[in-house]
Amino acid sequence: MKPLGPIPPGFESIGGVLAIAGQPVTQLVEAAGQTPLFVYSSQRIRARIAEFRAAMPARLALHYAIKANPFAPILDLMQGLVDGFDIASGGELRAMLAAGVDGARISFAGPGKRDAEIEAAIVHGVTLNLESEGEAARAFALADRLGMTPRLALRVNPDFDLKGSGMKMGGGAKPFGVDADRAGALVRTILDSGAEWCGFHIFAGSQALDAGAIAETQGRTLDLAARLGEESGVAVPRCNLGGGLGIPYFASDTPVDLGDVGARLGERFETLPEVLAGTRFCMELGRYLVGEAGVYLTRILDRKTSHGETFLVTDGGLHHQLAASGNFGTVVRRNYPCAIATRFDAPVEEEASIVGCLCTPLDKLAEKGGFPRAEVGDLVAVFCAGAYGASASPALFLGQGPALERLV
Amino acid sequence: MKPLGPIPPGFESIGGVLAIAGQPVTQLVEAAGQTPLFVYSSQRIRARIAEFRAAMPARLALHYAIKANPFAPILDLMQGLVDGFDIASGGELRAMLAAGVDGARISFAGPGKRDAEIEAAIVHGVTLNLESEGEAARAFALADRLGMTPRLALRVNPDFDLKGSGMKMGGGAKPFGVDADRAGALVRTILDSGAEWCGFHIFAGSQALDAGAIAETQGRTLDLAARLGEESGVAVPRCNLGGGLGIPYFASDTPVDLGDVGARLGERFETLPEVLAGTRFCMELGRYLVGEAGVYLTRILDRKTSHGETFLVTDGGLHHQLAASGNFGTVVRRNYPCAIATRFDAPVEEEASIVGCLCTPLDKLAEKGGFPRAEVGDLVAVFCAGAYGASASPALFLGQGPALERLV
Repeated sequence: MKPLGPIPPGFESIGGVLAIAGQPVTQLVEAAGQTPLFVYSSQRIRARIAEFRAAMPARLALHYAIKANPFAPILDLMQGLVDGFDIASGGELRAMLAAGVDGARISFAGPGKRDAEIEAAIVHGVTLNLESEGEAARAFALADRLGMTPRLALRVNPDFDLKGSGMKMGGGAKPFGVDADRAGALVRTILDSGAEWCGFHIFAGSQALDAGAIAETQGRTLDLAARLGEESGVAVPRCNLGGGLGIPYFASDTPVDLGDVGARLGERFETLPEVLAGTRFCMELGRYLVGEAGVYLTRILDRKTSHGETFLVTDGGLHHQLAASGNFGTVVRRNYPCAIATRFDAPVEEEASIVGCLCTPLDKLAEKGGFPRAEVGDLVAVFCAGAYGASASPALFLGQGPALERLV
Repeated sequence: MKPLGPIPPGFESIGGVLAIAGQPVTQLVEAAGQTPLFVYSSQRIRARIAEFRAAMPARLALHYAIKANPFAPILDLMQGLVDGFDIASGGELRAMLAAGVDGARISFAGPGKRDAEIEAAIVHGVTLNLESEGEAARAFALADRLGMTPRLALRVNPDFDLKGSGMKMGGGAKPFGVDADRAGALVRTILDSGAEWCGFHIFAGSQALDAGAIAETQGRTLDLAARLGEESGVAVPRCNLGGGLGIPYFASDTPVDLGDVGARLGERFETLPEVLAGTRFCMELGRYLVGEAGVYLTRILDRKTSHGETFLVTDGGLHHQLAASGNFGTVVRRNYPCAIATRFDAPVEEEASIVGCLCTPLDKLAEKGGFPRAEVGDLVAVFCAGAYGASASPALFLGQGPALERLV
């Protein structure tokens, strides 16, 4: 038997059925009218943000990186909960504007911004996190043509990475930002251009679970911001410390000790150098805010045996859950947390693999997990489905189409 | 420097610019109006099918597995070129019907078919490749309710795999088809149900390049079909031998020796047992027919240096080319064939990594390849983009949206 990842807190059983925010998933599926279905819990999102606010220094602002989940009702919910939004494309800017978010609350990072995207950002007062000298020159020229003052921050490729992070965004040659040793010069160029100088964006890595590593990286980020501020001779108006907070997906994962991260950042905030004295700091989080709040529900269409192994074939699959299938950024496939949602408190009775409906051996949702005996018609829940699920999977593959999504 | 995969035959340079079917890609992009753009060459598809027909025994029919590329103009083109179509979902059935294809030319395989999909297949006279005893029972019940005679074939999970194949679909416990040792009994059940018995579907693996391994697998497939026919006591009306023919993606790959595969299958066809004497055989191919006919074109937005390495940042990425980025079914990332399309015959001048516009280190199109020096505005071509590209990638990731597609 292969272990399943840990089911996140906040989910209960009502009459043997998994319930999300007090509603059994059978009811949620009936109301939606079909499976597969993503259900996101606003309660869990609120609770997570409250935990974050309680643990972290009051001075630290919180941004939502909408790439994690751009579902419109989540964007609406987030408006009352976070201090700003981070986007990664013109498409995400359109989603923000459609949600009625003021451009002044938005910053835009991404190594390949088209001219039209830069222009739209300037027009709407969005802060551009510049990724290179070339992009800076394009932004100056486009702002000139528009006769507008652009809001420009500089994304810096730090000389360090976030240890243990699932995605390393710094520490060596990277397509993101400018190398730290060229950042000071580019700040001077930005200041000379007459743009509104908005400070630094320094993102060392994401999906880390070790509080010590996260705190160490945040400390080095503050040191780097201070050094660059001093080099460029101006106080740093804002500094985006990036993300980094991970969630437990796999059996051996444990949650980040957020209290520890917050306490250590608070200590650092007590002793900031002059150049950072007035800086507005933020973290941008995506997965950490919404990942554990989402559940993917899919129905068992077939139960079959092959060479002594049991397969539960569902109507879902990697076209909605690419990462859970092990095909997105992972070398060795491991099981996400997963359960038979309609037998949620039943004991483990058998070993089974839960697969999707696609005609490819890649389409696995759980491999050789321990489950109660499930039958055709039972619902399967894949947890940690709130981030990088629906929008990060090939929904049209094999003619399937997207899953439904609901925020409850 | 890391090697690039081999550029497929049939592409030339016109005035230094990559041309597809005689048209420089600069013109193709201008006509389409934007990048990223997939261009598929009908000439290359026709040539590939002609090669196949010439090499393989005349008795072998050719089906197109539309999952490889369901772009509507390709479906139209294929109608005049192949003998049948294989689909994997109700969505693909709708695409076929929209293209005006008769259901009698279609077969439908897939481990997780919904009742509505089975029903639609029966109504339109599509052959269902049954994947289990449970699915067979559902098909009987649905046909009964409809008062129609279903066309039923049986997908068999063979006891062998296709050696060296990129995707193994047989040889052990699999969610696909019924195990060979239970197939005979299920054939009897299907015959007893009064359905139109349509024979076997035996798919051992895909993306193999070794003609010997492919021929051996085809031989074993014929042996298995014969054995099952004899066990069930009826001649085998049809037998789908599956796919298996791969295309060279990576530097060390060489094309399948199709002549060898065809000659060996022809020999086997000479000595078929009685139970296969009247069998109509087919292969279902997707990638092999269209993969090398497609080119993904994306424009360089930025050229930057980080820690001495050169990055060419494009307006494309893994949201259209998931497999080329190394994130779909591969353990170790290797470079697809890739070139600076606007300097197609220029010599190699530098080592560069070509990345997409997404804010993730996963978004690589070519890692440390050798290229002529390219500048902002140059077009990049990723080859072998005709199969499992546009429809097998997360187009909405980071708010990007789909690429344009053109058949020329």
